[in-house]
Amino acid sequence: MTTARARRAVHDRSSLLEVAVGEFITRGYDATSMEDLSRAAGITKSSFYHHFAGKEALLRAALERSLAGLFALLEEPGATDGTPLARLRHIVRGQIAVLQRDLPYVTLLLRVRGNTESERWALEQRRTFDAQIATLVREAVEAGEIRVGVEPALAARLLSGLVNSVVEWYRPGRPGAAQLPDDVARAAFEGILPAAG
Amino acid sequence: MTTARARRAVHDRSSLLEVAVGEFITRGYDATSMEDLSRAAGITKSSFYHHFAGKEALLRAALERSLAGLFALLEEPGATDGTPLARLRHIVRGQIAVLQRDLPYVTLLLRVRGNTESERWALEQRRTFDAQIATLVREAVEAGEIRVGVEPALAARLLSGLVNSVVEWYRPGRPGAAQLPDDVARAAFEGILPAAG
Repeated sequence: MTTARARRAVHDRSSLLEVAVGEFITRGYDATSMEDLSRAAGITKSSFYHHFAGKEALLRAALERSLAGLFALLEEPGATDGTPLARLRHIVRGQIAVLQRDLPYVTLLLRVRGNTESERWALEQRRTFDAQIATLVREAVEAGEIRVGVEPALAARLLSGLVNSVVEWYRPGRPGAAQLPDDVARAAFEGILPAAG
Repeated sequence: MTTARARRAVHDRSSLLEVAVGEFITRGYDATSMEDLSRAAGITKSSFYHHFAGKEALLRAALERSLAGLFALLEEPGATDGTPLARLRHIVRGQIAVLQRDLPYVTLLLRVRGNTESERWALEQRRTFDAQIATLVREAVEAGEIRVGVEPALAARLLSGLVNSVVEWYRPGRPGAAQLPDDVARAAFEGILPAAG
């Protein structure tokens, strides 16, 4: 209680959302109460309810934010113009940039297992996003830009696995953060451990 | 209750462990009680306690099993003899094979966040495993076998991320399961989406 009171109270919607996402990640969504959230934000429960209808509304807002970032990426010129391979490269770099910018939101999105309506909605949105990537991979194979090694669907899954695994260890301010989008793209297209020569 | 009673009751240690791991994954470890586990196994709580001292003992046994599989891999001739690159290739293939064989156990291991003593022990073991891979990556770079693109530590993290991401979607009996170890190794060493030509 002392720590929570000593911390500065937050009152705007976006800061409250950030506090909630932090608590959801640390405690788990199911184990977090509005009581916990109010305490973490240093405000009363009724002030919290003034901004958000409840826990599920907070989860929904957080998932919407991270999905909005990912889908906005698919609308960028680099993701819509050019060869399938160039578009894929743009998207992989962009996914890492979104993850770096919205780390807690993306972390929450990737932990979702489908226990609530908002979680099922987010899983559905993730499937839609992944399907667009899989389509682009198939197009790159058909255009002869990518060597046909594994099934395009498997390649798309591995690509998404590689990109999303970054949330497990990335922390803001890490050395090399600025090069990370390029580093991950190179790993995806040339190999994590490419043979020399 | 009906479903649980209708299911065949399990009595041996290894089947009880398997039931527990399934429940831990579905419900989350913290949310699972010995009551839930006894019901899922179709036996009484006291029969369950006859085999395992409690929930944490089950978690520990499950984590030990998946870590034993991973560390055994590092002792195989293919992981100890040959060039660093050949050893890495053997280990990546082997990690996928362990994951396919012990899927629920590895899934549980990868979800561990350090809330109990057994979880902290498992995280420490994972760090030891990852450090051995990072050392091998550095040796492969020094031997001139791998093109120096990213930092060896980053490459090791990305490699582990790629390999471990397979638990998110792999299910036993999937078509292509037998080739998966080779497919993932190729993706790691040549690229998930290698340029043609």
